[in-house]
Amino acid sequence: MNKPLILITNDDGHDAPGIEVLTNLMTQIGDVVVVAPDGARSAQSNALTVTHPVRFKKVEEKEGLIRYVCTGTPTDCVKLALNEIVDRRPDLIVAGINHGTNSAINVIYSGTMGAVLEGCENGILSIGFSINDHSSNADFSHFEKYVLQIAREALKNGLPHATCLNVNAPVGEIAGIRVARQCDGRWTKEYAKRIDPRGGSYFWLTGNFENHEPDAEDTDEWALDHGYISIVPTKIDLTAYAAMDTVRNWNL
Amino acid sequence: MNKPLILITNDDGHDAPGIEVLTNLMTQIGDVVVVAPDGARSAQSNALTVTHPVRFKKVEEKEGLIRYVCTGTPTDCVKLALNEIVDRRPDLIVAGINHGTNSAINVIYSGTMGAVLEGCENGILSIGFSINDHSSNADFSHFEKYVLQIAREALKNGLPHATCLNVNAPVGEIAGIRVARQCDGRWTKEYAKRIDPRGGSYFWLTGNFENHEPDAEDTDEWALDHGYISIVPTKIDLTAYAAMDTVRNWNL
Repeated sequence: MNKPLILITNDDGHDAPGIEVLTNLMTQIGDVVVVAPDGARSAQSNALTVTHPVRFKKVEEKEGLIRYVCTGTPTDCVKLALNEIVDRRPDLIVAGINHGTNSAINVIYSGTMGAVLEGCENGILSIGFSINDHSSNADFSHFEKYVLQIAREALKNGLPHATCLNVNAPVGEIAGIRVARQCDGRWTKEYAKRIDPRGGSYFWLTGNFENHEPDAEDTDEWALDHGYISIVPTKIDLTAYAAMDTVRNWNL
Repeated sequence: MNKPLILITNDDGHDAPGIEVLTNLMTQIGDVVVVAPDGARSAQSNALTVTHPVRFKKVEEKEGLIRYVCTGTPTDCVKLALNEIVDRRPDLIVAGINHGTNSAINVIYSGTMGAVLEGCENGILSIGFSINDHSSNADFSHFEKYVLQIAREALKNGLPHATCLNVNAPVGEIAGIRVARQCDGRWTKEYAKRIDPRGGSYFWLTGNFENHEPDAEDTDEWALDHGYISIVPTKIDLTAYAAMDTVRNWNL
């Protein structure tokens, strides 16, 4: 029997420590193909490269592992891999391990989760892994056994149609795993203004996350704040079904 | 009483005909501030500019209308507008009119809908308008009265928490309006391969949309295929609530 084929990408770029950890873990489970951006593509969401072409090249091939780098976004990486690179359908797509969490509303900005949504859209079991540490020397060791366990359980059980997983880990000791929902909240004070030597203003994205429901114990933010890994089952159908009748009652 | 403040952006760029039409329409309803990208930003999803700063400048100011251009993505435009440009909270954010539909899964790639999701995330009534014609000389005239009607009804009635609207119009005669759900489907044959003069391969994004449920009459694709405007109430909470217990039953 073939080993499972596992496709890996990320948004921190092919040389980020997080994707190296994830690649090493996944080679314990299956045959691995990595198709990762050739540099940082953080906060690229589901962006696609349409105004210019994309390219990819093989950078490593050994028993059970082939690695490519790609000039595009994380979503481009998944599309290119499925259309032009892999010769059989992956059994699992994993993205990360992202340096920084993709909990709460960050799921819509995240390049990591963009890749995961793209895998899910193609009907492939897909999981994003992130850790609450943006630094390039983040420690992933406490998270490793959980990443393996979650990937193995996902392969064993599958997921419902059009559903993927958004997995986020705290730093430090892990209290356990909680299946959670996306926390309601938003970013505030989002820009740092600077003045260039010619007097022009420019703006760096920054900001503070404001949790709108800090006491709700079923959110991903609560789980992370209390030392748990959060797993949010995530959908690619954005329809607000409950609001359909509301709008039908408008005078249209 | 103040007129409603309406913030407008798009992903085709500040000089696209679609945003000019939308701007002219919205000045009939309220005071308008346009903050649009300085060029095309199609398929930018909710991408954010994080590796370099963004800038904006005022390009027009007259009674009831101020226009800015911005170096960033559509989502950057909304964030900049709310944080740094407008001096009161917009009553409505509209994006478009996009040259090309954002129905079905395209909602996750669309820069237009990225801006709308961003507005929604900030608790502001937000609507994306798109038309099924990619050409720069698309005819919007048959859609105009509906855009006004939908915007006015939205202002009158509001929308439930964390819900926005994805409105798509067909070309030609309009049969009416249908409140619809996001159609299930995916893109196939996504790349056109080319060879450069030095023998290297490069790949242009293209593809065919494959509708997985062509007979379902409640989808946005069905509405558009049958001459209707589709309105999909759209959520920023991507949690797959129905799958939470499924994952809780895994051996984790």
